[in-house]
Amino acid sequence: MANPPSDALLSDLQTLLGPRGFSRDPADLEPWLTDWRGRYRGVARALLSPSTVAEVQAIVGRCADSGVGLVPQGGNTSMVGGATPPAGGEALLLSLRRMSSIRSVSESDNMLVAEAGVVLSRVHEAAQGIGRRFPLSLAAKGSATVGGLVSTNAGGTQVLRFGPMRSLVLGLEAVLPDGSLYEELSALRKDNRGYDLRQLLVGAEGTLGIVTAASLRLVASPGSSAVAWAGLESPEAALTLLRRLEARTGDAVESFELVPANALDLVLRRIAGTRAPLAAPHAWNVLIEAVAPHGAAPAAETLQDALVEAVEQGLVLDAAIATSQAQAEALWRLRESVSEAERLDGPALKHDISVPVSAMPRFIEEARTAVERRFPGARVIAFGHLGDGNVHFNVQAPSGAAADRWLEEEGSAASSMVYDMVIAASGSISAEHGIGQMKREVFLRTSPPARLDAQRAIKQALDPLGIMNPGKLFD
Amino acid sequence: MANPPSDALLSDLQTLLGPRGFSRDPADLEPWLTDWRGRYRGVARALLSPSTVAEVQAIVGRCADSGVGLVPQGGNTSMVGGATPPAGGEALLLSLRRMSSIRSVSESDNMLVAEAGVVLSRVHEAAQGIGRRFPLSLAAKGSATVGGLVSTNAGGTQVLRFGPMRSLVLGLEAVLPDGSLYEELSALRKDNRGYDLRQLLVGAEGTLGIVTAASLRLVASPGSSAVAWAGLESPEAALTLLRRLEARTGDAVESFELVPANALDLVLRRIAGTRAPLAAPHAWNVLIEAVAPHGAAPAAETLQDALVEAVEQGLVLDAAIATSQAQAEALWRLRESVSEAERLDGPALKHDISVPVSAMPRFIEEARTAVERRFPGARVIAFGHLGDGNVHFNVQAPSGAAADRWLEEEGSAASSMVYDMVIAASGSISAEHGIGQMKREVFLRTSPPARLDAQRAIKQALDPLGIMNPGKLFD
Repeated sequence: MANPPSDALLSDLQTLLGPRGFSRDPADLEPWLTDWRGRYRGVARALLSPSTVAEVQAIVGRCADSGVGLVPQGGNTSMVGGATPPAGGEALLLSLRRMSSIRSVSESDNMLVAEAGVVLSRVHEAAQGIGRRFPLSLAAKGSATVGGLVSTNAGGTQVLRFGPMRSLVLGLEAVLPDGSLYEELSALRKDNRGYDLRQLLVGAEGTLGIVTAASLRLVASPGSSAVAWAGLESPEAALTLLRRLEARTGDAVESFELVPANALDLVLRRIAGTRAPLAAPHAWNVLIEAVAPHGAAPAAETLQDALVEAVEQGLVLDAAIATSQAQAEALWRLRESVSEAERLDGPALKHDISVPVSAMPRFIEEARTAVERRFPGARVIAFGHLGDGNVHFNVQAPSGAAADRWLEEEGSAASSMVYDMVIAASGSISAEHGIGQMKREVFLRTSPPARLDAQRAIKQALDPLGIMNPGKLFD
Repeated sequence: MANPPSDALLSDLQTLLGPRGFSRDPADLEPWLTDWRGRYRGVARALLSPSTVAEVQAIVGRCADSGVGLVPQGGNTSMVGGATPPAGGEALLLSLRRMSSIRSVSESDNMLVAEAGVVLSRVHEAAQGIGRRFPLSLAAKGSATVGGLVSTNAGGTQVLRFGPMRSLVLGLEAVLPDGSLYEELSALRKDNRGYDLRQLLVGAEGTLGIVTAASLRLVASPGSSAVAWAGLESPEAALTLLRRLEARTGDAVESFELVPANALDLVLRRIAGTRAPLAAPHAWNVLIEAVAPHGAAPAAETLQDALVEAVEQGLVLDAAIATSQAQAEALWRLRESVSEAERLDGPALKHDISVPVSAMPRFIEEARTAVERRFPGARVIAFGHLGDGNVHFNVQAPSGAAADRWLEEEGSAASSMVYDMVIAASGSISAEHGIGQMKREVFLRTSPPARLDAQRAIKQALDPLGIMNPGKLFD
């Protein structure tokens, strides 16, 4: 367990970091003591904002000497309270936001090196600057930082083709819990020298070290892209369609997002300026984005042909392809507004879960039926990344005045029911968002002992003092 | 350090495993006590050949109780003595070859689950059986097993597009050093529940647990493929060509193998039935394989257009595209015969090294000049996976009677010189082959302390008794 920081340590850190790198002003600290969903609030005696790797090493070294905890923070957009300090004040806030250089961009290595504090949208811009792209995007791209994206193994809407951060991090630089520097930014495509520490740090939620920079993989810009909307009978039909499209396009389907009728209906009712994409409603819908390389047949043509064929075969009931950028954006807006429409409609329990891709269609149907039967009036909205076997399985409280009371009285039982069904289907109770504080209990309850023991042994071996992001993942 | 196995333990294991699973017959053990390159020879009191996961668990549990080491073995094709037992007889041989079921093949999950003893060529066949492919291949595909491929993070000639085993292992099953079972075969595309033990076991060379099965990623079969040979002025020109082809084909270049004039010359002189692929010799050559999806323009067309353009621009000096399967195989044979031609020509020092891709052209030229200057008469042959930043940087002894003496007297100094240049270029002293016994010394000498300390802490945490593949990677 971490110790509380002493006045001597704080004064030492103040001298080390100077006025721009050290603050105890409550106004400076305030925005970073609460997670952005407003569920967790912590206490910290100071906000440390180093601007160099050497400063991070000095901070970690001093905190290791005193056994004081550090909570690393980037954009503070964790969905699970992963960047909020503990309530006891025993840890200090370590902001990486001042470390915001893009150190290099290399066309011939297809990569760039970005410091932990670089915001995702700047990574996108830098890649575009050399005619490449960084193929990971998510709603918080204007605030999420490289350090947080790496440490949470972030996903998003393009995982289908290029994988999550784990697949895109070619190299890392991190300060380990003893203050030593792990430096492996040279981004070798092949390197078999013992255990892969890089992959251990990706997704570790800051509990094994402080990521200070990452080498990120860039890919070719597509020659063309196309966005389509298709109506189908079932999630099963959607998955069949995905596999056919992949075979047809050589795995060039980049997004394949499932939207059920109830979600689309909510969006159309709640979000101004949206309109139905097809003439009639369908039980299930998918939004598809596919690309084609320069010089190849345009993606729209290939996608159109494949969809026409699927309609003829009865697999797809109706489909529309965007014929302009504005239409493509309108289709994406339907998908991206689901969460907001839900929020406007009333309180809901959210579950970011995954099961094997082939099991997802059946899981959605069975789990929905089971939840709605046990909790009359509750409505399941399951939408999202079907091709990744990952949906947001949300349970809306029965509508009306009793909604909040229902959440309070039944929410915990309903969530447990969902998670138990996920585990029974060999799935994960956290597909994208990590464990943080919020899912610690269900993580500990549902993980097999062999896995937990091995993870705990690694934590104990690399961070014996428990100073790295205390209270997250493990106690 | 591991203890020597007692008679009581051996008798216990004999009862447990029965006659097919246990042998002390020297004739049974003999083939497995020496590595296939004949450099290392070890001693073992018994060969254990379990046929189920439960048997592997029982073996590991009993060996953990007695502190006895286990050396896991698949095809025994390690290039670095990684599967050869220690000379002191303190470890037992653990063959996974009887665990050779393909447990499942799933079209909708694009994966198959193979046990550790399944040979790579059977994985290829099983994938083809459902119209998919497993995109990793190497020369030893008829003997290398899944367990060994996973544990060494094997590479090969298709890493460029799909990555090494690390990118293709979707799930693992392994017996941990305390005999507990780590079971994560469900192959979730997204799973953020703490540290990624799967990635820790990949490439761990059997030092953290015994891999018993893996879920492997399958990809779509290509609609068409094309093989070409191009002559160029320099490795720099070759890398420029690769980047252009990738942009042109949407990253559908699957192999891009560099062959210098001296290597091609050796092949043409030493390997019967080979013939020059181009009208005139060129200082550098590349073998290119590109694919195209079903329904797209044939790969040969796209590749042809791109090469014609590159010739017009002076980037490529001459090029030929295979117009039949036989021609494609003949081109591949030129590349795949380089090692054999070298062997026939005389003894050589072999270095499987990598540097950042963009640094490789310059590295090849500078390192070659430096080595040949310091060791007059020695000739460098650098060939292989340019697009991965990985070449086989081999140094042929000066020809004639003195060759063996040169190797003995100067070999170690020449290898050290190569490795030091690799480290100076932020590269790896082992790109594909791992550390095993052979590279342990140079691994320990050249690894940064922060990295070694963290790796050692993990080994100590997960295998405190040191019974997992003793003598490999660490002492």
